[in-house]
Amino acid sequence: MSETFYVVPEDKHNALMEAAYLHRGFDAEESACGARFAAYATRHGVRTHNGLKALHLDHLFGSGSHGCVPSAKMEKVESRFAACEVWNANRKLGQAVAYAAIERCIELADKYGVGTVSVDNAFHYLWGGGYVMDAAKRGYIAYTNCTAALAEVVPFMGKFPTLGTNPHSWGFPTTEAIGYPIVIDWATSVIAMGRVQQLLREGVQLPPNAAVDENGQPTTDPAKAKYLLPFGGHKGYGLSLINEIVAGFIGGSTPTVRSRWSDDGDKHAPCFFFQVIHPDALSAGAFAGGKTQSANVKHVLADILGHGNEKCLLPGQIEAQAAARSEKNGGLLFSANEIAAFNEVAAECGQPAWSAAEFKVAQ
Amino acid sequence: MSETFYVVPEDKHNALMEAAYLHRGFDAEESACGARFAAYATRHGVRTHNGLKALHLDHLFGSGSHGCVPSAKMEKVESRFAACEVWNANRKLGQAVAYAAIERCIELADKYGVGTVSVDNAFHYLWGGGYVMDAAKRGYIAYTNCTAALAEVVPFMGKFPTLGTNPHSWGFPTTEAIGYPIVIDWATSVIAMGRVQQLLREGVQLPPNAAVDENGQPTTDPAKAKYLLPFGGHKGYGLSLINEIVAGFIGGSTPTVRSRWSDDGDKHAPCFFFQVIHPDALSAGAFAGGKTQSANVKHVLADILGHGNEKCLLPGQIEAQAAARSEKNGGLLFSANEIAAFNEVAAECGQPAWSAAEFKVAQ
Repeated sequence: MSETFYVVPEDKHNALMEAAYLHRGFDAEESACGARFAAYATRHGVRTHNGLKALHLDHLFGSGSHGCVPSAKMEKVESRFAACEVWNANRKLGQAVAYAAIERCIELADKYGVGTVSVDNAFHYLWGGGYVMDAAKRGYIAYTNCTAALAEVVPFMGKFPTLGTNPHSWGFPTTEAIGYPIVIDWATSVIAMGRVQQLLREGVQLPPNAAVDENGQPTTDPAKAKYLLPFGGHKGYGLSLINEIVAGFIGGSTPTVRSRWSDDGDKHAPCFFFQVIHPDALSAGAFAGGKTQSANVKHVLADILGHGNEKCLLPGQIEAQAAARSEKNGGLLFSANEIAAFNEVAAECGQPAWSAAEFKVAQ
Repeated sequence: MSETFYVVPEDKHNALMEAAYLHRGFDAEESACGARFAAYATRHGVRTHNGLKALHLDHLFGSGSHGCVPSAKMEKVESRFAACEVWNANRKLGQAVAYAAIERCIELADKYGVGTVSVDNAFHYLWGGGYVMDAAKRGYIAYTNCTAALAEVVPFMGKFPTLGTNPHSWGFPTTEAIGYPIVIDWATSVIAMGRVQQLLREGVQLPPNAAVDENGQPTTDPAKAKYLLPFGGHKGYGLSLINEIVAGFIGGSTPTVRSRWSDDGDKHAPCFFFQVIHPDALSAGAFAGGKTQSANVKHVLADILGHGNEKCLLPGQIEAQAAARSEKNGGLLFSANEIAAFNEVAAECGQPAWSAAEFKVAQ
């Protein structure tokens, strides 16, 4: 039997999320961004990065620690380059920074074909896929990477975790072609540390080559797993390195002390990199059979998923199905456990509790 | 015992390569580009993409087929975007196109911070890592992807090969920091089809999840392996899709008929995408302890490869070691078998044969 979900009106969800952020000292705009992004994640079925996770991360690494400074003001760094901006986020809430950065990249891409925004002194933006999905729905090719909060991943052939789970996220404007944007979005570890803990609770073995024990030896025992491994051996290792190197060029420092704050003169915050390309800036304008660009992309994808591959999924398809279900139900879908957790949030910020009984059950 | 290599003077190698290209109808500039790139690959120990491979591919898919048109003229497509160009390569030799595209990207990056060149109607550029390595040695962050010649890779959860081995190549200007550029460069399949054939000859099993049989079932038997799989499951599948989607936006068509020429009104050529970013365009200028950008990147890499990870390699390190060996020996290193194969090339274009005896043995 599938899990029961309750339909929480988005307004109600957003009001609680905004109150929670305001209570922690964030300003109105930051709180609105945090609420909007939490709704976006839930609408697309990304339960690992919903509002509860956002507030939990903010507590652990953000305003509850030294990682995030509510109401911080971002500064634009002087640059001689027209299509590239660099911002010092001063540890402002990641969602507010990411929304603004993608917006600026879109303006730059409209003007120059491509635009980048690099962000120093950043705080966790939660789910990179959300920002590039949003840009892709608006018709743009978008990319982001960031250095993850903690060094949990062991380099290929190494023993000790010195890399973050360093995700990459690409979004492509394929809504006209196939009904939704293709969003390729994942961490460069095989699995997340949260997944290791979940499998430990469930008494299930890890997949092979996902984790190592305290001596750097591969293990599938979740009780012995201490550090993560990159996916795909040296290839995933290279992808994880990209985020560290890009951050190193921006202004990020020592990976192993990231998010581990002290007055040691080092820098401890992650970095973000964003890029948007206008699809017209790629087009040679000569598609087979006189097709439009979108029709051509549709044709390419149909060939890839033809020939017996009809059961394959495209990245972003599951999220699009979740969004359709949310829309059909007219709200955001949460489990009873999630609603109970939102009531802890409500208690923290003095808002009225929710009751599963007040919400209709999702179809 | 390690293999014996002979030191071929680069001038001698390049003269033969140029003669071979000229004999096939390529113009002087194309021939010089082809020779230069072959030398570059060999100098860096990239034996899978040396001059012999270049000429073999040209025979199979290039000027010996319909894939490459010697002395073709490229056309720049009109674009309203200052930082992005689009070229119709008209199936000109890939190496000549790629060198010119990276050069133009560098000019654009110098001006705008970032520049892209997208190429329609392309022919195989051999080894993407070489172009981004060259740009990185000159101080730039460079990236390229392309659609590979043939659809040999089965999508994740699929049965039939509809994707190319679609490589990605990133180069970072880390020479000042660590002595060589970091170059992350690989195909999105676990292994190449050439490797399957090599393991078949050697009677060695394939790694798991690298290939499937004719029914789409995973196999480690090289005799049964018919199609390849992406590395890292859905993650490598997503990376392979990126190249097909980008090509679809540029002007590429049906993946399964790529390089399979017919008068069917479809387009059959691969596409290239190039991007260069000036490292100053990422810099927030505030590195911990007042370090320079390069010193900061060096510090980040030292942390990653510290803590017991001292035996890990950085991508590009093996190629840098090969280049140092080539330099020490004062030429390009080839095995006796490779020299014999060059003599087939010499016979084809009426040049004098080489003899291993005329070359000194490499240290």
